[in-house]
Amino acid sequence: MTARIVALAGSLRLGSYNRKLLKLAVQELEKLKAEVDVVDLKTANLVVYDGDIEGVGIPPEVTALAERVSRAQGIVISTPEYNHSIPGGLKNFIDWLSRVRPQQPFQDKVGAIMGATAGVGLTLRGQLVLRQSLTALGVLLLPGNVAVARAADAFDETGALKDSRTQELIAKLMSQLVHVSLANPLATKGT
Amino acid sequence: MTARIVALAGSLRLGSYNRKLLKLAVQELEKLKAEVDVVDLKTANLVVYDGDIEGVGIPPEVTALAERVSRAQGIVISTPEYNHSIPGGLKNFIDWLSRVRPQQPFQDKVGAIMGATAGVGLTLRGQLVLRQSLTALGVLLLPGNVAVARAADAFDETGALKDSRTQELIAKLMSQLVHVSLANPLATKGT
Amino acid sequence: MTARIVALAGSLRLGSYNRKLLKLAVQELEKLKAEVDVVDLKTANLVVYDGDIEGVGIPPEVTALAERVSRAQGIVISTPEYNHSIPGGLKNFIDWLSRVRPQQPFQDKVGAIMGATAGVGLTLRGQLVLRQSLTALGVLLLPGNVAVARAADAFDETGALKDSRTQELIAKLMSQLVHVSLANPLATKGT
Amino acid sequence: MTARIVALAGSLRLGSYNRKLLKLAVQELEKLKAEVDVVDLKTANLVVYDGDIEGVGIPPEVTALAERVSRAQGIVISTPEYNHSIPGGLKNFIDWLSRVRPQQPFQDKVGAIMGATAGVGLTLRGQLVLRQSLTALGVLLLPGNVAVARAADAFDETGALKDSRTQELIAKLMSQLVHVSLANPLATKGT
Repeated sequence: MTARIVALAGSLRLGSYNRKLLKLAVQELEKLKAEVDVVDLKTANLVVYDGDIEGVGIPPEVTALAERVSRAQGIVISTPEYNHSIPGGLKNFIDWLSRVRPQQPFQDKVGAIMGATAGVGLTLRGQLVLRQSLTALGVLLLPGNVAVARAADAFDETGALKDSRTQELIAKLMSQLVHVSLANPLATKGT
Repeated sequence: MTARIVALAGSLRLGSYNRKLLKLAVQELEKLKAEVDVVDLKTANLVVYDGDIEGVGIPPEVTALAERVSRAQGIVISTPEYNHSIPGGLKNFIDWLSRVRPQQPFQDKVGAIMGATAGVGLTLRGQLVLRQSLTALGVLLLPGNVAVARAADAFDETGALKDSRTQELIAKLMSQLVHVSLANPLATKGT
Repeated sequence: MTARIVALAGSLRLGSYNRKLLKLAVQELEKLKAEVDVVDLKTANLVVYDGDIEGVGIPPEVTALAERVSRAQGIVISTPEYNHSIPGGLKNFIDWLSRVRPQQPFQDKVGAIMGATAGVGLTLRGQLVLRQSLTALGVLLLPGNVAVARAADAFDETGALKDSRTQELIAKLMSQLVHVSLANPLATKGT
Repeated sequence: MTARIVALAGSLRLGSYNRKLLKLAVQELEKLKAEVDVVDLKTANLVVYDGDIEGVGIPPEVTALAERVSRAQGIVISTPEYNHSIPGGLKNFIDWLSRVRPQQPFQDKVGAIMGATAGVGLTLRGQLVLRQSLTALGVLLLPGNVAVARAADAFDETGALKDSRTQELIAKLMSQLVHVSLANPLATKGT
């Protein structure tokens, strides 16, 4: 059986550290033979959520993204921290998808959270807020995490992390994500 | 001396409960002779923050909003809770304005937080996240708050709250907002 | 196979609503043939954590409690909210146990969170803080929860909840706790 | 006029980094001619809060501490982070004092938060939880903070911080604490 995992960076910027960090997670997932679907918030090109727009109809690009998340058993998000929380754009993606019915697509997924920042704060406060929203949506979140500070110095020119312990943390977290996603404990038993 | 206060609802929907709740706060502010500038996230029409757009230049509509916030001494936000946090659109507004230089506009403002929801959760978790981001930006937040649950039944046909105690809480919070904004303790002494 | 679950109320008071709520959870666990070990913070009689005491040696009552948690695969905590967070006594229990070595006892457990309050706030903010600390300790937390407001009116004279939907939520959450604890996804695969 | 400030370290351990950090804050406060009352959680020797004990009567040591906090206009707390939150002992102190009537002693005080840790996490998550509880109790919290990581290397043998910028942050935060405490904006106008 193959685990299907959605991977998402929380920033839109093409050169973002979180795209780099996510790439390393995707490589680990592929080593584990997972089927990875990388969702790009930039090309997603979502407008800001507005209940009046929803009243007319969920935009087709939202429905398409929701279907991609629905097909997966797990999700990994690598996000920067903006103002001690997650980027508005990442939250906007979550908010839009949470409105899709009959079943919002995050329900019963397994989730893993990572983050990279140019500063020293490790994205810890943003990760707390992301946990809060994904818990609201029924995601079974792995307790482990990956947090990269001083990201401008963290990657070498090939995109690898200079600190091998962080790379090991990514490998471990992705291994958990694959195995727990395959066990899929909320979606099968116990619900 | 007149207090200048920016007032903002966290949802875009025209019929939103938080627009209604904000209106009551604005009425209290006007009774107190404050000068109120109501910012509307719907007509603000901001795109999702993208560092690549910022790299080209902060959009003029962001700069214009930042100037309006800069001119005020205080800010009141009434926000719904989406997925146990604040709406992505409200966070996106905060994120964009936080990038304006030489001085991001929230620094040293006095802030008050309110929220209304159709559910029973009182927007308490969203308010925590909003406090987290406004604290990051140097806002002196009043500890009191206003929280309205079951909002579909909370307002009468004139837009007034049926529960007079909540109306009194709004009056008290707005009185604090005006008086602390005028004292302006962070912007004058002690910084 | 039998699931072993530790059950804990966050308040010491004998007549506490959270003891009542926990009792209902224990009844559900027993229906599911789980082996339940109820830990009582009152009789635990822990002193406030002090690194100087730890320097002399972890108190034997802490070690004994840690062993009870270690033996379980899952843990359910029902806690009141004190000052928008969890009781200091509950946190003190967690802090002491987190110091036990070679392995702090919460690692890789499955966790479920519930709460009851006499007020309207549903213990939602306290539950967030409890999630934060249990995540720190490697607990795989179920995203669902149980939250009882106006607890003075919530139970009938037999101790049952008047609102059958809340009782159903308890049954569902305890069923998840048993099944995910038995699958034990972090302790076996993926770590 | 003299500002009266209560100063408190969140850990009991005699050699704690937060006692050291607090000492630097106290020195700054004294330079500013504030009257400082240092509360020591170790000698306070509080039992874990228990509603059954409260039912018999608030312990006299709690009442005595509450009176000390009541007499101040401001409070500064320097706290370690235990399990991504504040120490149970610090929360227990807050919980006990919050029960004193007719007026819990934190209401309308001005507050400043600092933290030191041996690790890299900067106590950021603990500080969020402390803000949450002090906001619940009506404290007007200064948005600035002080956060020391890798504390084992941060102080020199005289107890001074090696990084002068952190020392400047302490000086600035204590200056704000004194000035806003003297302005006392919640306790006088606007309430």
